[in-house]
Amino acid sequence: MEVTRKNYKDSLSTVYSAIEEADFLAIDGEFSGISDGPNVSALTNGLDTPEERYTKLKKHSMDFLLFQFGLCTFKYDQTKSKYITKPFNFYIFPKPFNRTSPDIKFICQSSSIDFLASQGFDFNKVFCHGIPYLNQEEEAQLREQTEERRNQQANGVGTPSFISPSSSKGPAHVPEEHKDFINRVVEKVEALFSNSEKTLDLDPCTGFQRKLIYQTLNWKFPKGLHVETVETEKKERYIQVSKVDEEERKRREQQKLEREQEELNDAVGFSRVIHAISKSGKLVVGHNMLLDVMHTIHQFYCPLPEDLQDFKEVTMLLLTCFLPFALQELITNTSLAELEKQLKENPFKSPQVETTERFPSYDTAQEQLHEAGYDAYITGLCFISMANYLGSFLTPPKAYISARSKLIEPFFNKLFLMRIIDIPYLNITGPDLQPKRDHVLYVTFPKEWKTSDLYQLFSLFIIYLLVSFCNSLRKHPAMNTSRYAESYKIQTYAEYIQGKEKEKPGQTAKTWGEDGWVKSNYTSSTTSGFGYPRYAWTADPSVFRCSILYLCSSFCRWKRSISPVQGAQGTEEALIADGWSHYSYPDSTGSKKMKTDGV
Amino acid sequence: MEVTRKNYKDSLSTVYSAIEEADFLAIDGEFSGISDGPNVSALTNGLDTPEERYTKLKKHSMDFLLFQFGLCTFKYDQTKSKYITKPFNFYIFPKPFNRTSPDIKFICQSSSIDFLASQGFDFNKVFCHGIPYLNQEEEAQLREQTEERRNQQANGVGTPSFISPSSSKGPAHVPEEHKDFINRVVEKVEALFSNSEKTLDLDPCTGFQRKLIYQTLNWKFPKGLHVETVETEKKERYIQVSKVDEEERKRREQQKLEREQEELNDAVGFSRVIHAISKSGKLVVGHNMLLDVMHTIHQFYCPLPEDLQDFKEVTMLLLTCFLPFALQELITNTSLAELEKQLKENPFKSPQVETTERFPSYDTAQEQLHEAGYDAYITGLCFISMANYLGSFLTPPKAYISARSKLIEPFFNKLFLMRIIDIPYLNITGPDLQPKRDHVLYVTFPKEWKTSDLYQLFSLFIIYLLVSFCNSLRKHPAMNTSRYAESYKIQTYAEYIQGKEKEKPGQTAKTWGEDGWVKSNYTSSTTSGFGYPRYAWTADPSVFRCSILYLCSSFCRWKRSISPVQGAQGTEEALIADGWSHYSYPDSTGSKKMKTDGV
Repeated sequence: MEVTRKNYKDSLSTVYSAIEEADFLAIDGEFSGISDGPNVSALTNGLDTPEERYTKLKKHSMDFLLFQFGLCTFKYDQTKSKYITKPFNFYIFPKPFNRTSPDIKFICQSSSIDFLASQGFDFNKVFCHGIPYLNQEEEAQLREQTEERRNQQANGVGTPSFISPSSSKGPAHVPEEHKDFINRVVEKVEALFSNSEKTLDLDPCTGFQRKLIYQTLNWKFPKGLHVETVETEKKERYIQVSKVDEEERKRREQQKLEREQEELNDAVGFSRVIHAISKSGKLVVGHNMLLDVMHTIHQFYCPLPEDLQDFKEVTMLLLTCFLPFALQELITNTSLAELEKQLKENPFKSPQVETTERFPSYDTAQEQLHEAGYDAYITGLCFISMANYLGSFLTPPKAYISARSKLIEPFFNKLFLMRIIDIPYLNITGPDLQPKRDHVLYVTFPKEWKTSDLYQLFSLFIIYLLVSFCNSLRKHPAMNTSRYAESYKIQTYAEYIQGKEKEKPGQTAKTWGEDGWVKSNYTSSTTSGFGYPRYAWTADPSVFRCSILYLCSSFCRWKRSISPVQGAQGTEEALIADGWSHYSYPDSTGSKKMKTDGV
Repeated sequence: MEVTRKNYKDSLSTVYSAIEEADFLAIDGEFSGISDGPNVSALTNGLDTPEERYTKLKKHSMDFLLFQFGLCTFKYDQTKSKYITKPFNFYIFPKPFNRTSPDIKFICQSSSIDFLASQGFDFNKVFCHGIPYLNQEEEAQLREQTEERRNQQANGVGTPSFISPSSSKGPAHVPEEHKDFINRVVEKVEALFSNSEKTLDLDPCTGFQRKLIYQTLNWKFPKGLHVETVETEKKERYIQVSKVDEEERKRREQQKLEREQEELNDAVGFSRVIHAISKSGKLVVGHNMLLDVMHTIHQFYCPLPEDLQDFKEVTMLLLTCFLPFALQELITNTSLAELEKQLKENPFKSPQVETTERFPSYDTAQEQLHEAGYDAYITGLCFISMANYLGSFLTPPKAYISARSKLIEPFFNKLFLMRIIDIPYLNITGPDLQPKRDHVLYVTFPKEWKTSDLYQLFSLFIIYLLVSFCNSLRKHPAMNTSRYAESYKIQTYAEYIQGKEKEKPGQTAKTWGEDGWVKSNYTSSTTSGFGYPRYAWTADPSVFRCSILYLCSSFCRWKRSISPVQGAQGTEEALIADGWSHYSYPDSTGSKKMKTDGV
């Protein structure tokens, strides 16, 4: 179901009941861009720590707009033995609520916009008919403002912006050139009191003139009048003066109160759907959903916290997420389209689903990828296939595994960390996995170096390389040629991280254990472990060649990126790594507000 | 005529000939926003100097996208005694040309987007079918890259990004896991040499595999082969290998050269229209066109210079502009819609115009304002009315005044400075007018102050006020309450400017004349003065009241602006002024590349 500002209010009860009855929810977002700084490969460096990844995404991805939100609800029908789905496709746009409401600026990235355009994305639906939204803070402020205005108007002071603090104490200062105009208004209002008309519509006039009218009428006629600014169809504003008795005044106030309340709810807009999802406590699944979760919190809930730990806490308040990472041995390509194909094949089974009447029934044969509602639908299908696959290991095997099953509980509240080679997920409810990276070296080398120089330097070792180029070199490609020539620096990963820690002002350095690795100060909240498969790192000679070739391509990318066409975009870090390393991971699972039943 | 990426190439000759035959051109731009920092009233402070205004617009307006460009050409038909118009409406979008071309990020301002949406603007035409563009520098870089690649390929080295510097000297390093794949490719190519086929299409493969193929084939078969990467409809890339003799090789090279040239021209895109306008030397008229000119230069020509003087020089290189400011006594409202209405009435006359066949004929009765092509059309009509009005003062009066008439020459190369109260225009070809501002005071006062406090402070003076609030107060509304309480500071405008000058590092302070005003170091290039009407400043008591009321509303705006909903957006300067002041203006007019004929 497509939901825009036009049908939003009418659809809300359908959305609410779909969430309420669902077994689980799938979400997906489309954004106006991905990175306003480093290119995507630098934004998602394979050796990022979870903190680094969070900080980079927060800094470089949050000024884009989440302008399409896909929600698909899934409810299992026991009698039909299939899931009933209700897909929603919401178009989102921060249309300013009134003149004092925030005028949001967001960035568009040409490549992302061009990509969506090539997929048939309808930008007019976003910009002309997108549903507005407010975060918690903005909503509270708006409610407060409304309350304040109401109190002031009840005291007969009028709209605060129309009146200066001193003017309620005395007559308005009417400039010479407006005196005739104001006198004519006063005459008309006096006539209103003596004739049978109930209402007087003044001519449209300027904001300054309206201010003078408010001031004058409040002063001259403190009772018996209702003065209101009204807008014509052509958006011209004029003042309507009505004679009112006490009963009528109360009725009008009540009307106004209700109108204001409705306007307020309209302004909160799409955020109400997010509140409903949060309140339902239902399992929310997503595909590579870290960015979706960050955008959802940032736009509809609160500004993102500085610190990763605080982000985890806000996320826990808001959502229960699911990470379908456990089957990576079976799944080689995690793009949503590929995932959907693989999960139709052995050992998985296509889930049985049916779309409710009145909802568009998506056909997976006719791909509508990159429409958020469709992507959410597909994501849900993938979840069902994977959950049911886990059921095949039970004795006796079960074909249907519920979203509340204990079997999938270990995967709750884990967000996939895309393109990090040795930390598969962000653990929302506890400390993150800490991979050993003592086989990783951090190399700084002059920009003149060619692949062959590095090849020579490392030809005796089988290593993984983390390569960084001096920021200063990046920014001034032409300078420092001689100073850096033939000079290089190799640090262990531990040294590199220690150096970075020192750069942060006001932060105490982490302690380092005897094995040269971070001792986490993080205390895990629960103790029941769960079995993440360990991967041994193999010292295969081909790995080294692979690394070097990886380096070549990174080097070429880097060469391109400093070419004047693209321009320098801050530091880019090329990284070199393959395979999996040993983990040192703390015990951790977390269960939160999700209720689970037996398998 | 609506021009998008779809019909751009076919329309280009029509556009070129319309420009070539025109007597003058009118332009207009629509942008994705106006200000990413201060609100519009702070961005266009009435007491800005031209330098300040330029710097603010450069800083806060250039990250928006000019996404619709209106051009209307006007050619006078002597036999019909009317202008023949050709309006064009170009949709613009920086679609990335290829993977290495700049991925432009631009800002959208919700209020601007919402306004355009309410006017029926078609965003899909912009984002899905917008014409791309490159500035001069980007174009030069792209041409250089293409040239470089061509040279390398002529030397048989292949695409540079596919090859490392060392690999042309020896065989490719093929990693163990790719050896089978590469060997199979080599076998297929060897078979091609011995069979009757001319062309071999390899299977789609990864970029890394393609690199290995290029390296291997270049090494193994230095002659007799043409190797090319081709894209399928599904955007999968594969390698096509062809047997070629020397003649065929040359023919293919020529084909490739032509294709590259065309792709290059496509990438330069809309900038070619701007080049044509610039090259034509035709008079270009616009409405409040400073922002249009800045965006045009910034997007299609070169990054905006730091310095206003350099901006003027770039503008002179690019355009001959016209400022219809001279008739301000007759024109009270300069919004384009109002302007168009007023210029139909006495003492002006509606111009006689006719739209060429095949062009949509705009009807001024059915307003299509804020479509750039229509706005350009209306702007041209206004210019004609005003030019012809000037002819009515001749003896004998003339009904038709050409765009090349000496009568309008004094108004060339002046850009209207919107909302600056005492400097009506930016003088592109000489020094700017320097108003006396010794009646202006700069007041800093505590945020707790109410209007009445200021009223009390200034109740004995008739003054103009320039009010600024401490930046620190703005940013921390809750702090410094006691420190600033009951303290204020009043500076003359001269002191204020001197203080600002001192803040600029590395700039020599301007010298101040005996009258307390800036001595311009600017030497005017020509000496023929032109008569800008002087306005006497009247010491009318009502002016003061007006100022105070202006202050009240500024104060309320300020109160709103620091309310948490809107949030602090840097410094906002409220300004207070009415009427006109005495000018000290240097002699200045400039004539440039415009040829003028007799009246």
